[in-house]
Amino acid sequence: MNSIDGSDHRIDDEIKKTRSAQAEVTVLKAYNSPLAHKEVVITQTNHKFLFGIAGFDIVQANGDLGGDEKEQVDRRVDKLTALFNYVTLPFYWARFEPQRGQPITASLMKAAQWCADHHLLVKGHPLCWHTLTPDWLLSMSNADILQAQIARIRREVGGFRGLINNWDVINEAVIMPIFDKYDNGITRICKELGRIKTIKAMFDAARAANPTAILLLNDFDISPAFDILVEGCLEAGIQIDAVGIQPHMHQGYWGVEKTMQVLEHFSRFNLPIHFTETTLVSGQLMSPEIVDLNDYQVADWPTTPVGEDRQAREVIQHYKTLFAHPLVAGITWWDLSDGNWLNAPAGLIRKDSSSKPAYDALIGLVRGDWWLAPTRLDTDGDGRVHFTGFLGEYELSYEGKRHPFALDAAGRSTVEIHL
Amino acid sequence: MNSIDGSDHRIDDEIKKTRSAQAEVTVLKAYNSPLAHKEVVITQTNHKFLFGIAGFDIVQANGDLGGDEKEQVDRRVDKLTALFNYVTLPFYWARFEPQRGQPITASLMKAAQWCADHHLLVKGHPLCWHTLTPDWLLSMSNADILQAQIARIRREVGGFRGLINNWDVINEAVIMPIFDKYDNGITRICKELGRIKTIKAMFDAARAANPTAILLLNDFDISPAFDILVEGCLEAGIQIDAVGIQPHMHQGYWGVEKTMQVLEHFSRFNLPIHFTETTLVSGQLMSPEIVDLNDYQVADWPTTPVGEDRQAREVIQHYKTLFAHPLVAGITWWDLSDGNWLNAPAGLIRKDSSSKPAYDALIGLVRGDWWLAPTRLDTDGDGRVHFTGFLGEYELSYEGKRHPFALDAAGRSTVEIHL
Repeated sequence: MNSIDGSDHRIDDEIKKTRSAQAEVTVLKAYNSPLAHKEVVITQTNHKFLFGIAGFDIVQANGDLGGDEKEQVDRRVDKLTALFNYVTLPFYWARFEPQRGQPITASLMKAAQWCADHHLLVKGHPLCWHTLTPDWLLSMSNADILQAQIARIRREVGGFRGLINNWDVINEAVIMPIFDKYDNGITRICKELGRIKTIKAMFDAARAANPTAILLLNDFDISPAFDILVEGCLEAGIQIDAVGIQPHMHQGYWGVEKTMQVLEHFSRFNLPIHFTETTLVSGQLMSPEIVDLNDYQVADWPTTPVGEDRQAREVIQHYKTLFAHPLVAGITWWDLSDGNWLNAPAGLIRKDSSSKPAYDALIGLVRGDWWLAPTRLDTDGDGRVHFTGFLGEYELSYEGKRHPFALDAAGRSTVEIHL
Repeated sequence: MNSIDGSDHRIDDEIKKTRSAQAEVTVLKAYNSPLAHKEVVITQTNHKFLFGIAGFDIVQANGDLGGDEKEQVDRRVDKLTALFNYVTLPFYWARFEPQRGQPITASLMKAAQWCADHHLLVKGHPLCWHTLTPDWLLSMSNADILQAQIARIRREVGGFRGLINNWDVINEAVIMPIFDKYDNGITRICKELGRIKTIKAMFDAARAANPTAILLLNDFDISPAFDILVEGCLEAGIQIDAVGIQPHMHQGYWGVEKTMQVLEHFSRFNLPIHFTETTLVSGQLMSPEIVDLNDYQVADWPTTPVGEDRQAREVIQHYKTLFAHPLVAGITWWDLSDGNWLNAPAGLIRKDSSSKPAYDALIGLVRGDWWLAPTRLDTDGDGRVHFTGFLGEYELSYEGKRHPFALDAAGRSTVEIHL
């Protein structure tokens, strides 16, 4: 596997093996009689894989994305919904509840509903983090901070249940108790409880509020520290549904070898892996000696033609490498347009909402190479059609009626459709 | 605590508070009548603190330390026993049992007995490590390797019980499953089981073979990875008696700030901390870009006068910083004379067995500043004497007879001696 590169047919073969099903669909009429020798159309309507995007603009626009810049907003929305099926919405506590007891729940509810209306699955990010934590925790005792944090998790996870069933429960627990840039309530309780007991408390609260939610432990650390933390949590009986890894590559693309190594280290738990915050810049790379990316503050960080070509190549390579690995369940890009976090040219589209080559390249994969275009097929005498499709949701159309079905597992798959 | 430096009186005050007892000794004759108004002599005979040294020479000399170079060997032995009370003996599996079923038990038994005869406590190092692992494991299945490793632990820990009650059970578990320099049996089983289950299996085997042994988890890693691993082990119910940290400082002294940070990260478990493999070189420093110290192979690495002065200053600073911290239970120097591991000038004595300034500085602390010289005291009318002494073993002499006692805990301490 280590020798895979994007131009290699082997990776395409691997992707096909991992991500596609050979479907046999039997179409039945009343009394289970086969629909013999008729033309049907198979249409893919969604990917099973989570192609995600940070959706902070959706909240900023209060969920209705209207106003003076409507035309530009509409272009962005079209580009977002054309490519992605999964949105990360911000629940940073300091912004979500700047005044204690006055959370901006309504604004997030509107954004989450907008996503649901546009067939976008939503993840809330994050429930517990030592950054962007409200200052009003600082006057409280550790016991009270812990209770407030648990109550906030219950409120959000319970309140958004149904609309949001995916949560980054803990963000960056590896550095949480040793974070020393400024005092904050969450570092205080993590220092006292230890990482594993903190994680357990937060996962228990989230699980109780929504037992069927997908709960992630998310970190930018890809050293043995994070992999040992995951192992420690699992040995302590914490049910982690997916491991979240943040590949912020402002300092340069990891390359296939490092990506494969990360996959190897984290695949031993046999848990789904989400690449939660993916960035590749289309401008100058950040210097390698910067440890905390937040230390890099620039007024202007332009996208360049050379950088855009590099970004497009790297996007293809990165998505292919991850899509080929059976445990990777999602990749979230961070974020759609330039000029957001760190003012970085990390977008797939420019500030004027025009597409970069990376956007075109990615849509060429997600809705091209890895997508079944609407396909006309004739049923055989037993009412059967055969096709190979990427895992996801489909419709079979016949006489103007659409009949949905899903391909959920790689390999041979049989489906019955009752007209 | 962060502002401590070796020339500061505050660290000496801290050391006194942490490491000394204010003793009231009551000397009683027959029928509990006090020995009133008599002169007694108080003599310190040992430290409670473990001042350790790597004792590989002891084994190489087959425990009798004789032969052609007897005079030089005698000088080394004198220097070793004058300063240290604790010896690490080598149990590297590949050397201990190069042919399966033919362990060199007798040689180690002789060395351990020699240590016991010289009032030196012994630690065996290590029971499970991915380096210096016998090649004959490579033809075995993982299940058989695991059984062989467990059987070897039972054999050594059980066989040496009484002579050796301190063990580095696991060495360097952080990199154990990802070590990729060469194939070896232990990396294979650790990769399959995971770190925590591997550690549990080894600790369980050692504990069963000697329930009162002091069992260490030892690592050179001082990043959050090791501290998270310790937490994971404790949460999984593994009883670690002490955390072992290897401060190999071939690339330069850590300094007080980094040392205090390491102490802060590892003291949260409230477990004893052993600094197990301490090196400070008295020659040129190794370049900082070398990650694996074993990559630095030089034919000649001389000790220099400037380097020796620096080493002496750093030794004082390092031992003071650690001795002041209540959870640090031992410091082992790695090792006595120059030219051992990596051919480094890391000794406290030179190749010709002459003392470096660091040796003199350290003995000045251990048997000077931190040691009670024989002290004449007159008992009062109730048979009492008062003195302040560093924690350890003592004798009270009266009329040519010696009466042993111990000072085990800092603060006020009362002792009764029955003549």
